[in-house]
Amino acid sequence: MYTIGLDFGTLSGRAVLVDARDGGEIAESVFDYPHGVMDEQLPSGLKLPPDWALQHPQDYLDVFVHTVPSVLRQSGVAPADVKGIGIDFTASSPMPTTADGRPLCFLDGLKDEPHAYIKLWKHHAAQRQADQINETARMMGESWLPRYGGKISSEWFFSKLLQILQERPDIYAQTERFIEAADWVIWQLTGHESRNTCTAGYKAMVQDGDFPSADYFRALDPAFENVVDEKVGREFAELGSKAGELRPQMADMMGLPAGIAVAVANVDAHVTAPAVKATGPGIMVMVMGTSCCHILSGRDLQVVDGMCGVVMGGVIPGLYGYEAGQSAVGDIFAWFVDHAVPGEYQSAARRAKLNLHEYLEREAAKQQVGAHGLIALDWWNGNRSTLVDVDLTGMLLGMNLATRAPDIYRALIESTAYGTREIIEAFDAQGIEVNELVAAGGLPEKNALLCQIFADVTGRPFKLSGSAQAPALGSAMHAAVAAGIYPDIHAAADKMGKLKEGVVAPIAKNQVVYDKLFAEYQTLYDYFGRGSNDVMKRLKAIKHDAIG
Amino acid sequence: MYTIGLDFGTLSGRAVLVDARDGGEIAESVFDYPHGVMDEQLPSGLKLPPDWALQHPQDYLDVFVHTVPSVLRQSGVAPADVKGIGIDFTASSPMPTTADGRPLCFLDGLKDEPHAYIKLWKHHAAQRQADQINETARMMGESWLPRYGGKISSEWFFSKLLQILQERPDIYAQTERFIEAADWVIWQLTGHESRNTCTAGYKAMVQDGDFPSADYFRALDPAFENVVDEKVGREFAELGSKAGELRPQMADMMGLPAGIAVAVANVDAHVTAPAVKATGPGIMVMVMGTSCCHILSGRDLQVVDGMCGVVMGGVIPGLYGYEAGQSAVGDIFAWFVDHAVPGEYQSAARRAKLNLHEYLEREAAKQQVGAHGLIALDWWNGNRSTLVDVDLTGMLLGMNLATRAPDIYRALIESTAYGTREIIEAFDAQGIEVNELVAAGGLPEKNALLCQIFADVTGRPFKLSGSAQAPALGSAMHAAVAAGIYPDIHAAADKMGKLKEGVVAPIAKNQVVYDKLFAEYQTLYDYFGRGSNDVMKRLKAIKHDAIG
Repeated sequence: MYTIGLDFGTLSGRAVLVDARDGGEIAESVFDYPHGVMDEQLPSGLKLPPDWALQHPQDYLDVFVHTVPSVLRQSGVAPADVKGIGIDFTASSPMPTTADGRPLCFLDGLKDEPHAYIKLWKHHAAQRQADQINETARMMGESWLPRYGGKISSEWFFSKLLQILQERPDIYAQTERFIEAADWVIWQLTGHESRNTCTAGYKAMVQDGDFPSADYFRALDPAFENVVDEKVGREFAELGSKAGELRPQMADMMGLPAGIAVAVANVDAHVTAPAVKATGPGIMVMVMGTSCCHILSGRDLQVVDGMCGVVMGGVIPGLYGYEAGQSAVGDIFAWFVDHAVPGEYQSAARRAKLNLHEYLEREAAKQQVGAHGLIALDWWNGNRSTLVDVDLTGMLLGMNLATRAPDIYRALIESTAYGTREIIEAFDAQGIEVNELVAAGGLPEKNALLCQIFADVTGRPFKLSGSAQAPALGSAMHAAVAAGIYPDIHAAADKMGKLKEGVVAPIAKNQVVYDKLFAEYQTLYDYFGRGSNDVMKRLKAIKHDAIG
Repeated sequence: MYTIGLDFGTLSGRAVLVDARDGGEIAESVFDYPHGVMDEQLPSGLKLPPDWALQHPQDYLDVFVHTVPSVLRQSGVAPADVKGIGIDFTASSPMPTTADGRPLCFLDGLKDEPHAYIKLWKHHAAQRQADQINETARMMGESWLPRYGGKISSEWFFSKLLQILQERPDIYAQTERFIEAADWVIWQLTGHESRNTCTAGYKAMVQDGDFPSADYFRALDPAFENVVDEKVGREFAELGSKAGELRPQMADMMGLPAGIAVAVANVDAHVTAPAVKATGPGIMVMVMGTSCCHILSGRDLQVVDGMCGVVMGGVIPGLYGYEAGQSAVGDIFAWFVDHAVPGEYQSAARRAKLNLHEYLEREAAKQQVGAHGLIALDWWNGNRSTLVDVDLTGMLLGMNLATRAPDIYRALIESTAYGTREIIEAFDAQGIEVNELVAAGGLPEKNALLCQIFADVTGRPFKLSGSAQAPALGSAMHAAVAAGIYPDIHAAADKMGKLKEGVVAPIAKNQVVYDKLFAEYQTLYDYFGRGSNDVMKRLKAIKHDAIG
């Protein structure tokens, strides 16, 4: 008995064929999106304005057609033994379609219309609309706003839809459905529309089962009053439930049996939780890569300072799923390695047969905690949680003439651990416990020093995902639940979820020093982040004036 | 008519033969000290403790013997046409001698005794003594203390002498004279002891013509009560006056006529002022290299926050000479270039046939003011003025993922200009005007961007020394005054002093932005430097604990 999980990322889609009995990953296949991220021009060559980022829905269909036959072929598994299929996706990446699910960008006459394409999660051209959404919600005292840390992102569902309405009312009028790409691909597989609770909750302001009121939407724009009923719909499908059955046309294209279970769509970060057995409260899942996404389940609903969102059933049915994040983690280390490490370290790394990250990690690991005398604020890309402020920037303090690259590298890693501790303490303050950390993603896998620092700084045991493809595994697990192989995601996680053996435990003597350093971090965090000294914002303003 | 100026630096001595009519530099010769800086061991191989830095007085005599004949030979100037000789020296670099001026380290039985050698300016092993000197002065309310920014340095005269007394009373007992190397070499040239007002004032707490009281010295140590009368003396010779006449033995060794005028010794930074025509009030002379020394004359005596010192006649007879400083300037840029610039910039610089400093300067110069979004505190080596705090460290703020090396390079240059502006404003606040800046030293000569930034940040016209060897030229000018060629240093400066043609004028639109950025610098300066957040000191304490 097998299931297939597909993980749709920013640049490619990946299928993993999984043994549903034990989570064994039998075969894997990746397909790069032919159109990639369209942030400069459309396929026709039409130039895009700044901050746009689009995708082409055909690319997702191509992922199915290329990767599923490949994993079947590689594994030798009989198609008849594949019992279900599940997917996860970036979010929020919504698109306008016709009533029957045809993307507007497929229509003659709209191929050259940017608003007809998918607005990828990192499309940032709807900031004006997000500002309006937030301001209006604050003025009207909307109850759902605090559940998103007080701020709706320009990346999210209604910011993007309002942008279409305000910039191209004609395209808005032609938009019969506006739907997450996650749900759209499920529609393609099953032949009928469904919407998952996860993206609806985290990205489309669905709380306690419903959207904001028509009054609220009308306040944004009179033409927006009935947006939900006209273009979205009010039914949501629980994670792990069956969205439908694989329709023959798609089954043929993939070489799978028609009629097998198709699971409700999921979001890449959130689906990671069951993949690392985090189906209960108290386990903070950190999906660490260029940025870090924190996923945590709790029994109670609490408003946590600057969280990204809380959604009932947004991660695990029956539990409140909390999301927080750090907007740059691996990106900071990559920035440092690419732009601030002198050539001699390159040479030394080569001699040691290590890449530069590995070499710096080795050198930094030789130090005692605190020996470099440095402290940094990890805001190279703003602060997502708990300050929710994109205008914050990085800071490094304590340099003298003897400061060297491994010192700074270590201080930067530590700063991201302090950032995570801030988030943990925000949850803690609301009584939502965090007893252990489980990390997935490329970064912790490759950096033992980082794992130890996170354990020492947070004082929590730190575990690693047992799968390098945790999102795809999580999707395959949801497929197994949808197919009835397991009664629920807890049972699936028990058998199919994977943790690496061993736990990185906090080292008591390091914790003592890190508690002191974290106190310094907190003081600077409050000083620069909470309005005592808004120098970072003023420097940004001066910079914008200078660049003009 | 010619004079010779000799500039005794940290690693070498340099002679310049100068035409006394117009300051023309006819010939130049450098001699590296054979013993260099002894900071690890004595010539015998005896190891030195940490923080020690000694020199060997024979090296200075060798400078005379090697460089003076060389400049005579190179120039073809007849020795009879050389009318005077003057010198300048690092300070405070004092040594113990016998009553007739023999260095103790020349005596049999003391060659292996570290305390018998010259304690070079950067000998930092007398910090405990400096602390005692300061604490005692504060407790006793000594009136001279504020004239040194409230703090006597471990580098200075009595810190070093007290160290001998406390660590080796036997060597102290054998010390019949304790004298600055500057004055000691003049003693060797003339055959009798003299002490210049400049080192006496800036380094030995001589104010209003006298040393601190015997009561004060007794409070430091009963055996120190009569230190001044026993080992130092109370006569001071004015700058530009004649210390004596060249005695035959030294004249023979150098190939000069005996009996020519020998000027009173000077200090390297201070002697630069007349060399750049800065003999009146309002002109701030900046000797810029690894660090920066600020020299300024004023008609009135004022106590300026955190200045290094104020001495009547310490620079120009009849005027109060003010000194301030920045403990790292070129050192910060060198640190950055050596330890934080990636290899690709090395390659690009090579392709452009520039060194890395030049390449970064060129790239940084393309930016509009404020476009990098960064601000730094220039405390990589502590803060000498106006905070007088060695425990402060560097800070850089505003980084994002798009920050590149030329951005940071420019921000670091700007930070040193802000540091100079802080010093200017401290003088300003006491009514001591600063109307223009004149820079000498290798750094501004090679970096046009730095000159413009200093002009823009300070709002003062910025001029450059016309001589690359300003200290030696200044010494030759003092020799010309001592020889009676000019009635005073003003007249000598008028004819012999040199400024480069052209003035770097502040650019109004840059000033507007720099005023805003400087306001940010000031806020951070106060926050981290004046006790609001002593994180830098606490990080240092944690670091020391970590290193053990």
